[in-house]
Amino acid sequence: MNRTVIAEMTWKQAQERMKEARAVILPLGSLEQHGYHMSVNTDNIVGEYMGRVLAERTDSVVLPVVPYGQVWSAKDFPATISLRERTFIEVVKDIVTSLENKGVRNVILFSSHWGNTAPVKIAARELLDEKGYRNVYYLSYMDLKRLGEGIMETELWNGSGFHAGEIETSIVLHIKPESVDMEKAVCEYPKAPGDVDIRPIPWITFCESGIFGDATKATAEKGKKFLENWIDTLVGLIETNIC
Amino acid sequence: MNRTVIAEMTWKQAQERMKEARAVILPLGSLEQHGYHMSVNTDNIVGEYMGRVLAERTDSVVLPVVPYGQVWSAKDFPATISLRERTFIEVVKDIVTSLENKGVRNVILFSSHWGNTAPVKIAARELLDEKGYRNVYYLSYMDLKRLGEGIMETELWNGSGFHAGEIETSIVLHIKPESVDMEKAVCEYPKAPGDVDIRPIPWITFCESGIFGDATKATAEKGKKFLENWIDTLVGLIETNIC
Amino acid sequence: MNRTVIAEMTWKQAQERMKEARAVILPLGSLEQHGYHMSVNTDNIVGEYMGRVLAERTDSVVLPVVPYGQVWSAKDFPATISLRERTFIEVVKDIVTSLENKGVRNVILFSSHWGNTAPVKIAARELLDEKGYRNVYYLSYMDLKRLGEGIMETELWNGSGFHAGEIETSIVLHIKPESVDMEKAVCEYPKAPGDVDIRPIPWITFCESGIFGDATKATAEKGKKFLENWIDTLVGLIETNIC
Amino acid sequence: MNRTVIAEMTWKQAQERMKEARAVILPLGSLEQHGYHMSVNTDNIVGEYMGRVLAERTDSVVLPVVPYGQVWSAKDFPATISLRERTFIEVVKDIVTSLENKGVRNVILFSSHWGNTAPVKIAARELLDEKGYRNVYYLSYMDLKRLGEGIMETELWNGSGFHAGEIETSIVLHIKPESVDMEKAVCEYPKAPGDVDIRPIPWITFCESGIFGDATKATAEKGKKFLENWIDTLVGLIETNIC
Amino acid sequence: MNRTVIAEMTWKQAQERMKEARAVILPLGSLEQHGYHMSVNTDNIVGEYMGRVLAERTDSVVLPVVPYGQVWSAKDFPATISLRERTFIEVVKDIVTSLENKGVRNVILFSSHWGNTAPVKIAARELLDEKGYRNVYYLSYMDLKRLGEGIMETELWNGSGFHAGEIETSIVLHIKPESVDMEKAVCEYPKAPGDVDIRPIPWITFCESGIFGDATKATAEKGKKFLENWIDTLVGLIETNIC
Amino acid sequence: MNRTVIAEMTWKQAQERMKEARAVILPLGSLEQHGYHMSVNTDNIVGEYMGRVLAERTDSVVLPVVPYGQVWSAKDFPATISLRERTFIEVVKDIVTSLENKGVRNVILFSSHWGNTAPVKIAARELLDEKGYRNVYYLSYMDLKRLGEGIMETELWNGSGFHAGEIETSIVLHIKPESVDMEKAVCEYPKAPGDVDIRPIPWITFCESGIFGDATKATAEKGKKFLENWIDTLVGLIETNIC
Repeated sequence: MNRTVIAEMTWKQAQERMKEARAVILPLGSLEQHGYHMSVNTDNIVGEYMGRVLAERTDSVVLPVVPYGQVWSAKDFPATISLRERTFIEVVKDIVTSLENKGVRNVILFSSHWGNTAPVKIAARELLDEKGYRNVYYLSYMDLKRLGEGIMETELWNGSGFHAGEIETSIVLHIKPESVDMEKAVCEYPKAPGDVDIRPIPWITFCESGIFGDATKATAEKGKKFLENWIDTLVGLIETNIC
Repeated sequence: MNRTVIAEMTWKQAQERMKEARAVILPLGSLEQHGYHMSVNTDNIVGEYMGRVLAERTDSVVLPVVPYGQVWSAKDFPATISLRERTFIEVVKDIVTSLENKGVRNVILFSSHWGNTAPVKIAARELLDEKGYRNVYYLSYMDLKRLGEGIMETELWNGSGFHAGEIETSIVLHIKPESVDMEKAVCEYPKAPGDVDIRPIPWITFCESGIFGDATKATAEKGKKFLENWIDTLVGLIETNIC
Repeated sequence: MNRTVIAEMTWKQAQERMKEARAVILPLGSLEQHGYHMSVNTDNIVGEYMGRVLAERTDSVVLPVVPYGQVWSAKDFPATISLRERTFIEVVKDIVTSLENKGVRNVILFSSHWGNTAPVKIAARELLDEKGYRNVYYLSYMDLKRLGEGIMETELWNGSGFHAGEIETSIVLHIKPESVDMEKAVCEYPKAPGDVDIRPIPWITFCESGIFGDATKATAEKGKKFLENWIDTLVGLIETNIC
Repeated sequence: MNRTVIAEMTWKQAQERMKEARAVILPLGSLEQHGYHMSVNTDNIVGEYMGRVLAERTDSVVLPVVPYGQVWSAKDFPATISLRERTFIEVVKDIVTSLENKGVRNVILFSSHWGNTAPVKIAARELLDEKGYRNVYYLSYMDLKRLGEGIMETELWNGSGFHAGEIETSIVLHIKPESVDMEKAVCEYPKAPGDVDIRPIPWITFCESGIFGDATKATAEKGKKFLENWIDTLVGLIETNIC
Repeated sequence: MNRTVIAEMTWKQAQERMKEARAVILPLGSLEQHGYHMSVNTDNIVGEYMGRVLAERTDSVVLPVVPYGQVWSAKDFPATISLRERTFIEVVKDIVTSLENKGVRNVILFSSHWGNTAPVKIAARELLDEKGYRNVYYLSYMDLKRLGEGIMETELWNGSGFHAGEIETSIVLHIKPESVDMEKAVCEYPKAPGDVDIRPIPWITFCESGIFGDATKATAEKGKKFLENWIDTLVGLIETNIC
Repeated sequence: MNRTVIAEMTWKQAQERMKEARAVILPLGSLEQHGYHMSVNTDNIVGEYMGRVLAERTDSVVLPVVPYGQVWSAKDFPATISLRERTFIEVVKDIVTSLENKGVRNVILFSSHWGNTAPVKIAARELLDEKGYRNVYYLSYMDLKRLGEGIMETELWNGSGFHAGEIETSIVLHIKPESVDMEKAVCEYPKAPGDVDIRPIPWITFCESGIFGDATKATAEKGKKFLENWIDTLVGLIETNIC
C-alpha cells in the first residue's frame, strides 16, 4: 500500500492513513501560461511534486492537485483558466469541510500558484470564523529571495516577479524536463506601465512571452538546489508547528 | 507537438490548436470511494482516459480533469470529497467563461462521475441564459444498459445503480489495471431502506463496501468492449451534432 | 372543521391538526403551457387534487400549491413562468423551515411538475445538511410507464416525455374536465434536434403545440384508472415509510 | 374564452390576451394566521378576488396568487409560513422577468398582504436598475383610513394596525363568507411592549388571538362598501397612470 | 477621558466604557444631495450630532457615523452615493456582530437618513433570527409631524416628505450653520408624476433643486426647538425600554 | 466654495468640481485598536488627512472616509470593528459605481488601513471585469521602508509590521497630537507563534498592547518628514499616471 498518495488508495486504506498521518496536503495549482517554453500545466506539475515530497518527508498524505486556480493577471492568455476569487475560496472551503468531518489531524493548503495565496488565506480565516477549524495551514513559495540565494543568477522582475523565469524553469527542468523546451526559452523583463501597482492591469497588455525574468539561465541543477532549500524550509515549518 | 492534451502544450501551441479544434473537452471527475478494490481516484482515471480518447477521435483537445465533484450520496465515506451543488456549478461556469472569451469553437463537459451530471446541466443552462453561450455540450455515461448489453453479466442495482460494480471495475481493469485489486473485489447489492427514492439518504447508512453490484465478475476484456461501445456512441454524437 | 386542507382552517384548527397529522404535504406546481387544449394551470390543478387526496388517504394535511416552478424547458412559451433553480430551492427551504420550527411530524414535497423534481431533491439535501431535518420527503410521478401500463395506448415521447399528452390530458379530463378542450387536442411527437440530450435546448425551438405525445387519445376513464394506480402507489410509499 | 384569468386560458389564448391587455396583474398573498375566526388563507382569498376584479375593470389579465409571502411579524404562529426577504424578492423578480421577456405592456404587483409591500418595492427598484424595466407597478391597501372613512366603526390598532380586525373580516364576509366564523370573532387590541416600534418583536409574544382590532364589528355590508372604495381608488390609479 | 465618543478613546478606555454604558449607538447617515443650500454631508452632520447628544443623555457611547447609506430615490443626483439594499444590510450586520462578540449591553442603530430605516429593520430582524441578538434597537425621525407641531410653519410634501426643507434646514442652522447658505435656499414642492407612489421613480426626474418643501422658512431657533422635542422623545424611549 | 472636500459642498458645487477634478479620492479607514496611547480612530484620522492633502496637491476632490474596514487580525480587540471581506468589497464597488454613473474622470481608493488593501484590489478587478471601469486606482502605504529611511529609528516587526508603532504614532503626533497620549506609549515587539505566517491567528492571542513596534520613539518631527516623503511619492504617482 502506498502510504502517501491518497489517489492511489482505496477508501479503506485512506481511512487508516488519514487518521494517523500528520496532515492531509491539498496542492492548489492552476492552468496558466508559462512562456513559450513551458507547458500551461507547470503549476500543477510543481504542486503535485511538492505535495508528494512534503507528504513523504513529514509523514503526511497528499490529495490530487486542484488544477484550476485564481489567475486574474494572466487570464487573458490562451489556455489560461481563471476561477473567480469567490469560486476558488468556496472550492477550498468545501474540500476542507469534507475532510474535517472525518477527523483528519491537520490540513495543509499548498499553493504552487502565486495567485492562489491570497484567497487561500481568506478561506482559512472563514473556516476558522464560521466553523472553528484551527488546524488549517497554508504554505507556498514563502521567501523566494532567500531560497534562491547563491543559486539563481538573474534578478527578480520589479524586485519580486518570477513567473516562468529562471526559478520556475529550473524547477521543472529538474522534476519534469520533458515539459520544458529550452530552445524556446527567452528572457523578458516586461516594461510595465507606470500604474501597474495601482490599477488592475492584465499582463497580456504589456508582456509578450508571458515570462517575467530570464528563462534562458535556467538549469536542472539550479532547480535541484532550489528545491532542496524550499523543501527543507517547508519541512522545518511543518515539523515545528504542525502535529 | 502533442495535438490533443492541452496540459502538454505551451500557450502558443494551445492557442493554435484550440482555435482549429472541433471542441475543448473538460472532464469532470471526483475523489470518491469505489469499494474495497479500487482507488478513490477511479472517476478521475476514467475521466482522463475518456477525455483523451474522445479528443483524439474527434479532432478535439482536452483539459485537465476537475478532480473534485458533487458527491452527495457518498460524501460520508473516508477520502471522499464533495463540493456543494452551487460551488461545483460556479467552477464549471468560470472555466467555460475563461474559454469562451478566447474564441474556442465548442466546449464539451464530460462527466465521468454520475453526481456531476445534474449540476453540469444547470451550469450549461445558466451559461446560455446569462451569457448566450450556445456551444456548450454535456456528455456522460448516457444509456448504460444498452452500452453493456451482451457484455455485462450482472444486474444493475435497483435497475440503474452501478457504482464500483462490474462495469466500472471492468473499465479500470482495461485502462489502468494497477489501480484495481481484484482480490478485494466483492459483490454487494445493498439492501436500501424503503424510502431511499423519496428522501436524501447517505449511502454509508446502508452500504458496507461502497459497491452497488458485483465487482467480482469484472474483466479487462469486458471493459475493453464496453469502452468501444461507449466511445463509438459518444464519437457518433459529437460528429453528428458538434462542429 | 375540515381535517385536511390547511387553507380552510384557522390557525388554531391548523395547530391541532398539524401536530397529529402524519405529514404536511406541500404541492409544487407551475404555470406552464400545456398544449392548445389545456390551461396553463394544469400542473397546479393536478397538484391541488393530488395533495388533497393523498392527505385524505394518509391522515395528513395539505398546504396551498406553490403555483410557480422551475420550468426551464418551456419557459419561452407565452404564459409560462419559470423561477430560477436557486430561487425555487430557497422557496422550498423557507417553507419547510417555517413548518419545522413548529413541530410537524413530516413534510412531503409533492411535485406535480416534472421540472421541480431535481431542485426539490437538492432542497431536501440542503435542509438535511444545514439544519438536520430528517423528515422531509419528495414524491412525484415516480414510474410513469408502470403506472400507465394497460391503460395508456400511446408511446411516451423519446421513451420518457409525456408533457400534455395522453396521460396528463386524461388526468385532467377526470378531475377538472372544464379546463380541457378536446376539440383542440392534437397529436405531436416533436422531432427533436439530434443534440437535444446533450445541450440545453428550449422546447419552443422544435415543438409547435407544446405537446409531447398524443392528446387526442385521452379519456376521463383512462385518467381515473391512472390516478387510482398513482394514488395507491404513493399511499403505499407513504404508509410504509413515513410515520 | 375567459378574457381575464390566465389560469383558465391555454397558452395560445393567453398569448393573444397578454399582448393586448393593459397589464398583467400578479397578486401577492400569504399563508398567515388571521385570528380565531378566519382561515389562514385570508390574504390569498383577498388577493385572488382583487386581482380578478381589477383585471376586469381595467382590461387587464390576472395571474395565480403567489400564496406565500414575507410574514416576519406573524411567523411564529402555527400554519403561518414566511419567506425570507431576499427569497420573496427573487420570486417576484423571476416572475416579472419571465413576463417581460414576452412583451407584456405592464406588470402590476398587487399585495393583499401588508408584509409584502416593502420587499415588492425593492424588487421593482432592482428590476429597473438591473434590467431597465420601467413598466412594473405596485399596489396594495394604499390609504386605509380614507378608504374606511364613514364605513368602519372601530379604531386602527396603534393608529395603523388592522390585521384580522373589522376591515379584513368585513371584506371576507362579503367575498367568501364561508371562510369566516363570526362566533369565534373577538376584539383584541394587544398591549404592545413599549419597544415594539424600535426593536423586532414577533407578534406571538404579545398578541393572543392574532387579531389587531375588533373583528366582532365586521359585517358583509361594510366589506362591500370598503371594497367599492378600494377598487374605485385602484382602478382610478391604474386608468390614469398605466397604459 | 472622553466618556462618550468611542473615536476619541483608546481600546482600553473603550473596553471599560462599552461594558458599563447603557448602549453603543451607531449613527447611520448618507452622502446625499440636500438642495442648493446645504452640503451633501447633511445627514452625517445630523447623525454625528444626534449620536453624541443621545449618548450623553443616556449614559451611552457613540461610534463613528456610517457616512454612506441606502439612497435609492436621490441616487442620480451628483455627489450622491447609494449602497444597494443588501450591501447596506450586511454592513450593519457586520458592525453589530463585531460589537456583540465583545459583550456590549445594547446596540442602537440611529438613522439620520430616512432611506436607511427600512433596511436597518431588516438587519435587526436577521440578527435576531440568525444570531439570536435581542438587544438591537433602531431609532430615527419617528413621528415628524408631532415633533414639529407648533414649530414648523410649512406643509410636508405630499403629507410626509421633508427632504432638505424647513425641518432639516432648521436643524443644521442650529448645529452647524456654516454648512448652510440661506441665500441659496429655495421653496420647491415638486409636482410628482401621478404614479410616484406605485412605481420606482428617481427624484431627479421631477425635482429640480432636490428640496421637498420650503427651505426659506428655516431658522436656527426652529431647529433648536425641534431638536429639543426630538431628543426628549428619543431619550424617553431609550430610558424606558433599553437597559 | 471649498474646492476639495465634497462633504463641504452642495450637490451643485460638487457636480461642477467632480467633472473637472483629476480624480475623486475615497479614503478607506477602519475603527481599530492602536495601542494604549492612540485612539481607535487612528486610521480614519490618517485617511481623512491624507485624502485632503492628496486632493489639494493633485487638483482632485475627496469623499468622506469609509470608517469601517476589513480588520480581521485585530478584530477581537475591544472597540475594533471588522467588515467581512465580501461586505467591504461590495461597499467599495457600490460607491465607485455611484460615482462612475455620473462621469467622474478617475477614482482613487486610498487605504489608510493595511487590511483594506487586499479587498480593495479585488474590488477594482471586479469593477473592471464586470463593468469595464478602467479608471479606478488604489493607493496605500506603498513602500514603508523606503519612505521611513533616515527618519525612523526602530525596526519594523518581523521585517514588515508597523501597527501603532513608531511610524503611525509619529504621523498622528504631527497631524492630530491630541489623539495621542505619549505617556501611555510602550514598546512591544510581540513574540508571535511560529505558525503566524502559515495559519490565521488573531493578534489578541499573542500581543498585549496591540502595538507592533516601538511607539515610544515617535515624534511629531518624524511624522512630518515621513508624511512629506509619503505625500510626494503618492503625488508623483498620481501626476504621472492618472489624468
